[in-house]
Amino acid sequence: MENVVSLPIKTLPIRTLMGPGPSEIHPRVLTALAQPAIGHLDPAFVSLMDEVKDLLRYAFQTENRLTFPVSGPGSAGMETCFTNIVEAGDKVVVARNGVFGQRMEEMATRLRADVVTIDDEWGQPVDPEKLEAALKANPDAKVVSFVHAETSTGALSDARTLAGIAQRYDCLTIVDTVTSLVGSPLYVDEWGLDAVYSGAQKCLSSVAGIAPVTVGERALKKISQRSEPVGTWFHDLGLIDSYWSEGSKRAYHHTAPVNSIFALAESLRMVRQEGLEKSWERHRHIAERLVEGLRAMGLQMLVEESGARLGQLNVVKVPDGVDEAAIRARLLNEDNLEIGAGLGPLAGKVWRIGLMGHSCRMENVERVLACLKRALNEPSQSQAIS
Amino acid sequence: MENVVSLPIKTLPIRTLMGPGPSEIHPRVLTALAQPAIGHLDPAFVSLMDEVKDLLRYAFQTENRLTFPVSGPGSAGMETCFTNIVEAGDKVVVARNGVFGQRMEEMATRLRADVVTIDDEWGQPVDPEKLEAALKANPDAKVVSFVHAETSTGALSDARTLAGIAQRYDCLTIVDTVTSLVGSPLYVDEWGLDAVYSGAQKCLSSVAGIAPVTVGERALKKISQRSEPVGTWFHDLGLIDSYWSEGSKRAYHHTAPVNSIFALAESLRMVRQEGLEKSWERHRHIAERLVEGLRAMGLQMLVEESGARLGQLNVVKVPDGVDEAAIRARLLNEDNLEIGAGLGPLAGKVWRIGLMGHSCRMENVERVLACLKRALNEPSQSQAIS
Repeated sequence: MENVVSLPIKTLPIRTLMGPGPSEIHPRVLTALAQPAIGHLDPAFVSLMDEVKDLLRYAFQTENRLTFPVSGPGSAGMETCFTNIVEAGDKVVVARNGVFGQRMEEMATRLRADVVTIDDEWGQPVDPEKLEAALKANPDAKVVSFVHAETSTGALSDARTLAGIAQRYDCLTIVDTVTSLVGSPLYVDEWGLDAVYSGAQKCLSSVAGIAPVTVGERALKKISQRSEPVGTWFHDLGLIDSYWSEGSKRAYHHTAPVNSIFALAESLRMVRQEGLEKSWERHRHIAERLVEGLRAMGLQMLVEESGARLGQLNVVKVPDGVDEAAIRARLLNEDNLEIGAGLGPLAGKVWRIGLMGHSCRMENVERVLACLKRALNEPSQSQAIS
Repeated sequence: MENVVSLPIKTLPIRTLMGPGPSEIHPRVLTALAQPAIGHLDPAFVSLMDEVKDLLRYAFQTENRLTFPVSGPGSAGMETCFTNIVEAGDKVVVARNGVFGQRMEEMATRLRADVVTIDDEWGQPVDPEKLEAALKANPDAKVVSFVHAETSTGALSDARTLAGIAQRYDCLTIVDTVTSLVGSPLYVDEWGLDAVYSGAQKCLSSVAGIAPVTVGERALKKISQRSEPVGTWFHDLGLIDSYWSEGSKRAYHHTAPVNSIFALAESLRMVRQEGLEKSWERHRHIAERLVEGLRAMGLQMLVEESGARLGQLNVVKVPDGVDEAAIRARLLNEDNLEIGAGLGPLAGKVWRIGLMGHSCRMENVERVLACLKRALNEPSQSQAIS
């Protein structure tokens, strides 16, 4: 039983996190996370909830009243948007250019929607012309969904243009901003995005397991006109809206993840303090240094065009003949440095190097370049010894 | 903007938590919570997941392979059980003797089940004879659901007897153990419970927002025979099972709430260290001291019979003529002590005094008795001054 009673401080490694998330949590956020819990109905907590909503509105650049964190991971945020907005039989156009577009398709299908997909190669942004063609061919479509920043490929799509097309065809938009929020320019109101979800463990550098969401009036109108109640009690936005309402209208729904909200609030205060524009610029600028360094080592980026390439998630091709898993394992075991593997058709072919939030620092760029160079060019120390 | 950048350590009060949850988090668990994050695919994290599953099997007293924490609050655990096991058209018998029985009814209804309810007065345990009569009258029933420890009333139902009846009528059981786990005797395998969910912020004294769940083979068999896929991707147990599988079968689903799992693991290690029997006895014994003290003050318990009364959640009647909300506010504002209000038909009529996990200590019993006595008998200091 001895290992059972040991403190985790002894058993958990300290890693430099440069994968696709979670990113490194800032010490200020860890301190906030570990504050003693208070009740979720405590006036001090209710006031914190109001602060979090305001700070999220800033991060999303929106005035939407219904802006709050879902008590679950980013996928629960995705599910919240789909489950409420999409009804059985609704025609939904889903853009697939990576894992998370596929997940959107699966959710819409389970909701018995009539799903139309448009496809772009993994590593390419969503093609606005394909969306327009799909909407022309499907004038009865009600919803368009796409991923702003594809975590599986590192491609940034033009959310403003895609949302503009959806609006011209009278469609609502559901937009995944899990990896873009705070890392890439995002203007929910100016671009007219209707239902938007994100995660806290990417460019917010907060804890995994909580998902910022914002829903605008057009989407709420469609939800209010549903012919059947939302299929899951837990994801019902009407009930969640009451729980996150200001003042006396507030009604118990579930117990909010109190300590995670402490952490989210602190990470959002840090975003407010830095300023969104500076944060976007930091992610862009520091990623450029990484890309320069990778190219100097003879490596190639999956997304060549810089306007469509994410700074916070850099997907680099594995050179021919290199065992990508062995390199990742070596970085983890010898350097305590995590980078990500490829997913789906990109498995074995790419590495995903995250520069998100607090992980997005020059020292991390220098570190990953040095470690990768050593791993690619020198025999492993542990192999050399054995 | 000054308040925006202040650290929460300055703005959050320190409370003694004696409501219906969250309970106080042990310092060891807060320390674990605030460890730097590691990747959710890191071998060190995968090994922690395996440890958590083993420790949860001990807490639930089960050998069920599929034993894991849902990445969401207790209500997400409830939704996971219902969404997977209950199909449209299934006849489901739901016992309602408080808020959480009502919630079960609502979830089953949204899943388009054929719901039969049995009712007991709030404060009474579920009556096994009513369950037997309902099953006799509904031989096509497939599922029975009930709450082991009703957090809204403080009543403990006889889960062993109820599950035995359900089995005789060939029904699966879905059982809410949110407040009972670790606080009251619970033997998932010996009692033959099929799908059981709990929360981490009650007698585990861990963080809110993560929900231990265990599902047995009979329930998995019914799930495998579903005629339609589970309606929500996020709650699909087949996908979640793969994510929590050992070794090479493991498949990405969502990003686990890494830091919450650190905290859950540490709280489960503490349970293992104390021993379940000792924990159950501590909750029983310390609650008896509270009940004695309340009765000595002339107060009455809602649940009179000691065998049906929870130790971890003591529901006490508000004396005639006393403004219950004013007393609670005074305890919170003058003593930084939280107790809970009544819900539903009990609103305004009872207080709910939790003694859960780390909050279940003699010093807390002495404190709440002293503060309550003062609040009921002496004018408020703040009122006296003003």
